[in-house]
Amino acid sequence: MSVAALQLTSDELEARLRQIGANRYHNLHRFHHRLHGGQCTYEEVQAWALNRYYYQAMIPIKDATILTRMPNPEDRRQWRKRIEDHDGREESDGGIERWLKLTGSLGFPRDYVTSAQGILPGTRFAVEAYTEFCRSRSLLQAIASSLTELFSPAIINERVAGMLAHYDFVSKETLAYFSQRAVQAKRDSDFALDYVKKYAATRAEQNSVIAALEFKCSVLWAQLDALWSAYVDGAIPPGAWVPGEKTTHGQAA
Amino acid sequence: MSVAALQLTSDELEARLRQIGANRYHNLHRFHHRLHGGQCTYEEVQAWALNRYYYQAMIPIKDATILTRMPNPEDRRQWRKRIEDHDGREESDGGIERWLKLTGSLGFPRDYVTSAQGILPGTRFAVEAYTEFCRSRSLLQAIASSLTELFSPAIINERVAGMLAHYDFVSKETLAYFSQRAVQAKRDSDFALDYVKKYAATRAEQNSVIAALEFKCSVLWAQLDALWSAYVDGAIPPGAWVPGEKTTHGQAA
Repeated sequence: MSVAALQLTSDELEARLRQIGANRYHNLHRFHHRLHGGQCTYEEVQAWALNRYYYQAMIPIKDATILTRMPNPEDRRQWRKRIEDHDGREESDGGIERWLKLTGSLGFPRDYVTSAQGILPGTRFAVEAYTEFCRSRSLLQAIASSLTELFSPAIINERVAGMLAHYDFVSKETLAYFSQRAVQAKRDSDFALDYVKKYAATRAEQNSVIAALEFKCSVLWAQLDALWSAYVDGAIPPGAWVPGEKTTHGQAA
Repeated sequence: MSVAALQLTSDELEARLRQIGANRYHNLHRFHHRLHGGQCTYEEVQAWALNRYYYQAMIPIKDATILTRMPNPEDRRQWRKRIEDHDGREESDGGIERWLKLTGSLGFPRDYVTSAQGILPGTRFAVEAYTEFCRSRSLLQAIASSLTELFSPAIINERVAGMLAHYDFVSKETLAYFSQRAVQAKRDSDFALDYVKKYAATRAEQNSVIAALEFKCSVLWAQLDALWSAYVDGAIPPGAWVPGEKTTHGQAA
């Protein structure tokens, strides 16, 4: 069998990528089941929102990293929309601002959340692995790592419906972050999927795209692992937020 | 109170650093207690050795990163010993080679271990956060992050004595990695402690040294969190080693 014969068609590559989602996306994680199933305590939902803030906050930095690597203005115009979605066009706008409304509604002062001082090391290391991946790997891999958005509309619907049904401390308003994400994610993943199908020309490049999506699934999965260990299993690592503790933004030690 | 008055004396700085060890070093982690206390299963010891290999393997790369940043030949001569300790002076020598003897004695093929394909994402992200920290932060912080070695002779003694007492599948020979580490760690941490006491001239620099050691403690802690979650609690993330599975070094997907 020749090497050429081993190459995947564009449709086969897409099928492989969708299969990764079916096997590894974090909608399969026990913390997600617990969250949308209504079994989380208030403190667990707090911990989830606090930690997930750091991921949200780093997304535009990750996307700006990718922008720096795109030689083509048309690609940059497309990709720039991601940054606009998260950072907004004015002060009260954008996904990060909406996420801060959620953490605020859960009792966290804004400064405490944005300082990231209470997040889990497991969250920090996973998120920073993602930005570093997009800085140091090929542009093709950096773009491919965004493809978890292929799978996010489904998890968002499940999460929002489940949380509204089960928790009286969340509302459509506090979950406003998610209201626009499904449409944005569809637009963004359409672009990224077209891009990798077009530019992953060799089997080695196709494999690198597959590996990038597996990597990204592990970035999301590891964040829920860390949450479960700390706040469901109760083994909070030194320095991380402890439910009930005072959450002022501390001075340097 | 003036800013100068807030500055720590050299002895106060050392005391603060030792206090971090007393509060945050991974000898306090439940996985360490389980390992040296004899409660680990064979598979848990396997998982520990397999994952810890990746940390061991990246140490000389971390140290080479620090070498690239040291302007002073005398400092580089001192620091280079760390690389020699891990990489050895000839083929059968060095800490990495000794660690591979341990993983080999626990049934893992050498190629499988060195491929790192079965390690936990939590291990990978924590270890890579460490190398990235030593690349991107100040040289002072990079050196300070090695100061967990101040605390390692004690944990090594406890670990080796406990493992020899409780597990018939380990021996002094398979734990040979640790036989030289206490002496090396003492020499290395003497150098690093002298360095930070000498060069952390402002309170801001002293704080950065404290933060670097806290960061490094979280790198070690997060690795044991990931082990516990996957192999004690049984929630193995997709793609990580599964006890009993065939461990050949796989081809690309």
